[in-house]
Amino acid sequence: MAAGSSMEWLKSVKGVILDCCGVLYDSGEGGGQAIHGSVDAVRRLIDSGLTVRFCTNETQNTRERFVQKLHKMGFDISVSHVFSPAPALIHILRERGLRPHLLVYDDLIPEFDGVDVSSPNCVVIGDAADNFSYKNLNEAFRVLIGLEKPLLFSLGQGRYYKETDGLKLDVGVFMKALEYACDVQAEVVGKPSAKFFQTVLNDMKLQPHEVVMIGDDLVNDVGGAQCCGMKGLQVRTGKYRPSDEQHPSVRADAYVDDLAAAADAILTNH
Amino acid sequence: MAAGSSMEWLKSVKGVILDCCGVLYDSGEGGGQAIHGSVDAVRRLIDSGLTVRFCTNETQNTRERFVQKLHKMGFDISVSHVFSPAPALIHILRERGLRPHLLVYDDLIPEFDGVDVSSPNCVVIGDAADNFSYKNLNEAFRVLIGLEKPLLFSLGQGRYYKETDGLKLDVGVFMKALEYACDVQAEVVGKPSAKFFQTVLNDMKLQPHEVVMIGDDLVNDVGGAQCCGMKGLQVRTGKYRPSDEQHPSVRADAYVDDLAAAADAILTNH
Repeated sequence: MAAGSSMEWLKSVKGVILDCCGVLYDSGEGGGQAIHGSVDAVRRLIDSGLTVRFCTNETQNTRERFVQKLHKMGFDISVSHVFSPAPALIHILRERGLRPHLLVYDDLIPEFDGVDVSSPNCVVIGDAADNFSYKNLNEAFRVLIGLEKPLLFSLGQGRYYKETDGLKLDVGVFMKALEYACDVQAEVVGKPSAKFFQTVLNDMKLQPHEVVMIGDDLVNDVGGAQCCGMKGLQVRTGKYRPSDEQHPSVRADAYVDDLAAAADAILTNH
Repeated sequence: MAAGSSMEWLKSVKGVILDCCGVLYDSGEGGGQAIHGSVDAVRRLIDSGLTVRFCTNETQNTRERFVQKLHKMGFDISVSHVFSPAPALIHILRERGLRPHLLVYDDLIPEFDGVDVSSPNCVVIGDAADNFSYKNLNEAFRVLIGLEKPLLFSLGQGRYYKETDGLKLDVGVFMKALEYACDVQAEVVGKPSAKFFQTVLNDMKLQPHEVVMIGDDLVNDVGGAQCCGMKGLQVRTGKYRPSDEQHPSVRADAYVDDLAAAADAILTNH
């Protein structure tokens, strides 16, 4: 769908939630690189007076370091406007008195400073990338299967993402693996969990119908947001594949070429 | 259930199919070790005149080397009486003109001598153990997702098995991972595929109701055999867990302590 005239529903939009990887930037060696036009698009959206938040399933960095990375690419973003799974999980662990066995990316570990990880009574997996070795998966499996009631948390449930050198398997794949091994269902923290999106909406002080989510992941960004009553817009960058536009169960409210085109459409109709 | 009086149905049994790992031996460093009494039990079953076959989802060795390993442990077993997934798969590949990308254990590779693996048009996974690295899983994933119609073969679909140093994740876990990544359903070659069991029954020249399957895997050995019309007996060795006896959907025709006890029961009623 071309941006512009056919997107009159954007008139009621007061806030925008942006996915990060695949929308703002393509990840890869050295942290990745900004997608053409996206730095300017973010600036224009914020300057227009819209309430803008960033919602990422990124779990290869602490939130602080993640925002530093975005700053380096030129994005002017505040840490408090970024919502990622690890801080949300830590809140849950504290609330429920849980001690995690962690299978996550090394750079995420500092996020868990002060969290009791002795005698684990649950397993937490994030996008651990190369840490998803057979040895580490076996370790996590043995902890899980040894629990009276295996409890698995997954920081997101993505299938794969795009780095500059190609597609990479995401955490959801290993969540499915451990779910099958132990015959359990994981609790997903992050997109597309409705609870996670609701936390962002609360912070924005907006109703779902006033907000549009922009993402490259049809199911977790667009579908997840739509399930909460938001509009969902898919960009044709990042992990987007043409077949997404013929998906059997999820249909975006609009498909646009990139974030710059999305910003044009939103600001034209604003 | 105690072996003996309550197992009168064994009178009609003319053949026995034995699972190997967890029934004959526990795997581990140096190839593993025979389970107490199992070498003698196999000999007694064969000497009784019953038709005995061995049906394994072992994919860490060629069939020849697998039988050599069993010989070393003291089992007197003929290669032609052992049914494993790789030879069955190779038959399928030839029949359908398929060229596999292999993600298997190094020692299984010689089984594929003479199989064309150039420009792969399908992916084959076996119990690759340490070869299930993030790098190798990504490679297999990229081949699959790049195919017009992703085609995944899994040599078995076990969840986990027991080695002398603990439980290890089996191929089924990584099958589920790749199934989710590519939104496909794998074709399983090996137990519990009915086609695989039927090949063994054909070789035995027996009807399903004349045969009992003995395994430590409730779902893939016992349940798979029962789906084909055989009786299924679970031993309390290998990956057996007490909770198996309260499984919601699969119930063995009998549970016995080990293969020696199973042989006692069969030969008493024979």
